[in-house]
Amino acid sequence: MFKSIQESPLYALANSESMAFFGASNNITSMGTNLLMSVQAMGFEGKIYPVHPKEDTVLGTRAYQDVKDIPEVPDLAVVVLPTRIVNETLEACGTFGIRNVIVVSGGFKEVGGGGVARERVLVDIVTKYDMSLLGPNCLGVANPHHKLNTTFIPYEGPPGFIGLASQSGSLITQLFDYLARLGLGFSTAFSVGNEATTDLVDCMEYLGACPHTKVIALYIEGIKRGRTFMEAARSIVPHKPIVAFYIGGSEAGKRAGFSHTGAMAGPDGLYDGLFRQSGIIRARSVTELFDFCWLLGSARIPEGRKVVIQTHSGGPGAAAADSCGRAGLDLPGLSRATLDKLAPFVPGTGSVNNPVDLTFSKNPQDFFSRIPEILIEDENTDVLMIYFLTPWQVVQRVMIQAGVSPEQAVKEGEKIVAQQCEQMARLMRDQDKPIVGFSFRSPEEPSIKGLLSRGVPVFPGPERAAKAIQALTAYGRIRERFGLNG
Amino acid sequence: MFKSIQESPLYALANSESMAFFGASNNITSMGTNLLMSVQAMGFEGKIYPVHPKEDTVLGTRAYQDVKDIPEVPDLAVVVLPTRIVNETLEACGTFGIRNVIVVSGGFKEVGGGGVARERVLVDIVTKYDMSLLGPNCLGVANPHHKLNTTFIPYEGPPGFIGLASQSGSLITQLFDYLARLGLGFSTAFSVGNEATTDLVDCMEYLGACPHTKVIALYIEGIKRGRTFMEAARSIVPHKPIVAFYIGGSEAGKRAGFSHTGAMAGPDGLYDGLFRQSGIIRARSVTELFDFCWLLGSARIPEGRKVVIQTHSGGPGAAAADSCGRAGLDLPGLSRATLDKLAPFVPGTGSVNNPVDLTFSKNPQDFFSRIPEILIEDENTDVLMIYFLTPWQVVQRVMIQAGVSPEQAVKEGEKIVAQQCEQMARLMRDQDKPIVGFSFRSPEEPSIKGLLSRGVPVFPGPERAAKAIQALTAYGRIRERFGLNG
Repeated sequence: MFKSIQESPLYALANSESMAFFGASNNITSMGTNLLMSVQAMGFEGKIYPVHPKEDTVLGTRAYQDVKDIPEVPDLAVVVLPTRIVNETLEACGTFGIRNVIVVSGGFKEVGGGGVARERVLVDIVTKYDMSLLGPNCLGVANPHHKLNTTFIPYEGPPGFIGLASQSGSLITQLFDYLARLGLGFSTAFSVGNEATTDLVDCMEYLGACPHTKVIALYIEGIKRGRTFMEAARSIVPHKPIVAFYIGGSEAGKRAGFSHTGAMAGPDGLYDGLFRQSGIIRARSVTELFDFCWLLGSARIPEGRKVVIQTHSGGPGAAAADSCGRAGLDLPGLSRATLDKLAPFVPGTGSVNNPVDLTFSKNPQDFFSRIPEILIEDENTDVLMIYFLTPWQVVQRVMIQAGVSPEQAVKEGEKIVAQQCEQMARLMRDQDKPIVGFSFRSPEEPSIKGLLSRGVPVFPGPERAAKAIQALTAYGRIRERFGLNG
Repeated sequence: MFKSIQESPLYALANSESMAFFGASNNITSMGTNLLMSVQAMGFEGKIYPVHPKEDTVLGTRAYQDVKDIPEVPDLAVVVLPTRIVNETLEACGTFGIRNVIVVSGGFKEVGGGGVARERVLVDIVTKYDMSLLGPNCLGVANPHHKLNTTFIPYEGPPGFIGLASQSGSLITQLFDYLARLGLGFSTAFSVGNEATTDLVDCMEYLGACPHTKVIALYIEGIKRGRTFMEAARSIVPHKPIVAFYIGGSEAGKRAGFSHTGAMAGPDGLYDGLFRQSGIIRARSVTELFDFCWLLGSARIPEGRKVVIQTHSGGPGAAAADSCGRAGLDLPGLSRATLDKLAPFVPGTGSVNNPVDLTFSKNPQDFFSRIPEILIEDENTDVLMIYFLTPWQVVQRVMIQAGVSPEQAVKEGEKIVAQQCEQMARLMRDQDKPIVGFSFRSPEEPSIKGLLSRGVPVFPGPERAAKAIQALTAYGRIRERFGLNG
C-alpha cells in the first residue's frame, strides 16, 4: 500500500492540470468530440489543448496542428484517434515530454490478429517514455473532485465517496445518474480497457490511498495478476472495504454464447475463493455492488447481526423481517427497559415486538427522533432498520383541509420534512450503531430526497436494505480476520 | 370459477354506487376523516352519506345523525369507529338494508381475549343479514377503474391491470406511487384484514373473473382454507397468472422474534409445495411480486428460455448475460441468416455475438426498429432483452453544440424520443415474442418514461429483468401443465 496517494503511477493522470486532446473536432457526431464536450461540461479547470491537423479552434478552444506546437508540456494526453495513427501519436507525445496518456481508441489486443502486435508496439513506446497509461480501448477517468471527466456522458450529481475500477467503460457512464439519484457519487472511477500496462490492481491501490474514497467497487470480467491482486486487496481491506462484481466466464466464453453452465462454473468458484482470501465482499449484480458500497461508505460497522425494525406499516415491517431472515440477520426482542421507555409513544394499535409497528404515531416527529433513539440504545440492537412511509401528500392534504392554502401547505410541508430529515441525520451522526432506511417511495420525493441528500441511506425495498446490512456485518468480520479492529 | 364477475360476493362491494361512511368528522387528524378524504380525492362518482352524531356536514358533505336518516339504502357501509360501537352499528346497517360493509376498525380477533368473542358477534350479525364483509381490521378496497379508494393514501397514477389481494392493508397504500412510477396500476386491490367472512380466496376468485385484471398478486402472511385456495388457483391459472409473496412464519412467530430458523422453516416448505401444486409463481420480495406481475401482464408468453440481448454498452450487456445465466435462461448464438441481415447495421467496433453489442449505432433510430426486428425474427430467439441507455442529455448536448437553441433542443429531443418509444411499442405489439427492456436510468427520465407509458416494460437493472423473464417462462410451463395452452 502507498503511504500517500502521490506515490501512485495514476496520481498525475487522474489529477492532471493540463491536457492535450487528440481526436476532437467540430464534427459533433464524432466520438472524440463528444469526449471533449464531457471534459468541458464538467468545468475542467486546467488548460485544454486540442490537437487537430486542420482546424484553428475546436469546440471554441484554440487548436494546435501538432503536439509540439503546444506552448507547455501538458500533464496528460487523451487520444481518440483512428487506430493506425495512435502509436505514432504516442511516440510524438513521448518525445514532447508528456508522461500520462489515456488511449480511448480500440483496435488493439481485443480484436486479435494484427491488434496484438499493435498493442505490443504501444507498450514499448509507453515503457520507453515511462508513461502512465489507461487503455487502450477505455474511456479514461472520472474524478469529479478534480472536475475531470473524459468519458462519453456528462458527470451528474455531486462528487462522492465510491471509488470504482471497471473493466467496462460504458458501465461507468451509465452510473452517474443512477448514483446521483441515491445521493451518491464517485470519488474517482477508472475505465481500465485492455490494461496494457496499468491494470485493475493499480487502480485499486490508487483508490486505497485516495482520501475521498471510503469504499472501493470493482467491476471485473477477468483478473490478470491474481497474486498481486490478492496482496493489494489484503493490505487495503483492514482500512477500507472492497466490493467486487464479477460477471463470470472468460471474455471469449461470454461473447460466444455465455451459457451459465460450463464456462462460468469453473472460474466462478475460483473467483469466489480469490475474493474470500482477499477479504473482498462479493456482489451478485450491479445493483448489489453499489448498494453494498452505499452502506459500507455511509454507516458504522455493527458489532453483530441483531436488527431492530421500526415501522408504522405492518406489511412493509413484516416484509423487512422476512428479508432480514433470508439475509442471515437476527431479530432480537427488546429489553424490559426499552419497552418501558417506549410505552408512552406507542398507541394501542401498535406492537412493541420486533418489528416495532407504531401504526399511527401520536406525534409524527417522535418517529424521527425519540423513538429511534430509544430503539438504538437497546443493548440488543446492533442495527436499526427504519421504514420511511413519507406521508408527503397526506401532510399536505391534511393542511389544506385545515384551511391552509395549497401554496402554504407545500411550504409548511417542506419545512416539516426538512426538520424530520435533519433530526434523522443528526441521530445517525450521534450514534455509533448503523441506521438503515428503506422505502417504496421514489427517491425523488422530497422526504426521501431530504434523507438521501443528508447522507441517510434509504434503500428502495427492504430486501436490498437487508442484503446491504449483511455486507456490512461481513465487513466487520473481515476487519477482525485481517487484523485491524478499530 | 365464476362465469361472470357479478357472481362474486365482492362485486357489489367493490363496485358500490353509494356509501354510508361512519367515523369521519371534521377533525382532520382522525383516521376515519383521512379515509373519507381519500374517497373524495379519487373522485368517487356515487353518493356519499357521512353518518355523524353531531355534525351537520362532514368534509363539506351533508351528514346524517343516524344511518336510518339516509334517504336511500346505500350499497356500502364503511366503518371506522371505536371498537365498542362497531357491532351495534353493523346491526343498524343490517336492519336498514345495507348488504356490503368494510370494517376498518381493529380490536377484534387480532388482539386476542375479548376481541375473539367480539369478532364472533360481528360474524353473527354479518351472517344474519347476508352481508359481504371486508375486515375487520383492514383498509378496504382500491378499485381505480370505479374511482373507489377507501384506503388511507390517495390513489396515484392510472388504473392498471394488476389485481391484488393482501393481508396487509398499509402495504397496498405504499404501492400506489411505486407502481405509478413504472407506468403500472391496480385493477382492484383488496385489503382483507382479519378475513372474518370473506378471505383471500374470495378476492382471488373476484380477480380471476375481473376483466380489468391481467395478473393476480397475493401478499400472504398465512392461508386459512388451504384446499379451497388451491382449487380456486388451479381453475384460474390456465387463463390468468397468479404470483404470491409469502412473508413466512406464523403471525405469532413473526411478531415474537421472527427468527429465520425454526418458525419459518416448516411453513415455508409447506407453502412452497402449496404454491407449486396450485400453479402459483412464488416471489421472494415485494419487488419481485410486482416485477413478475408487470411482465406477466404486459408481455407475450415465450416458447422457451432462449434470450437474445441487444445492447450498445458492453458492461450492461455482460451484466445482463450474467443475470440471465443465474436465472436459468439460455443465450443462443444467432443464425447465419440473422448475421447477414444484421451486418449493414453493426459498426466495426460492435459484436454480433449474444449479447449483440452495437457500440455506436450509425443511425440511432435503427436501435429501436430494424435491429430489434431482425433479432426477434431469428428462429433461435424466444425473448428479446434490450438495454436502454437513453442518451437524452447527449442528444441535447449535440444539438446545442450544432447551434440549436437550448429550448429548441429540448423540443426536438422530445420529438425524437417520442418517435423512438413509439417505434418500440409498435414492434412489441406486432411481434408474438416478448420484448423486455432494462436500464440504469431513472424511470422518470423522458426516454424511459416514454417507453413505460406506452406499455414497454423497462426494468431498473438486468437482474430484475432476468428474474421476471424466468417467471414468464415458468408461467408458460404452468399453462401447459394445467391444461390450457392457447
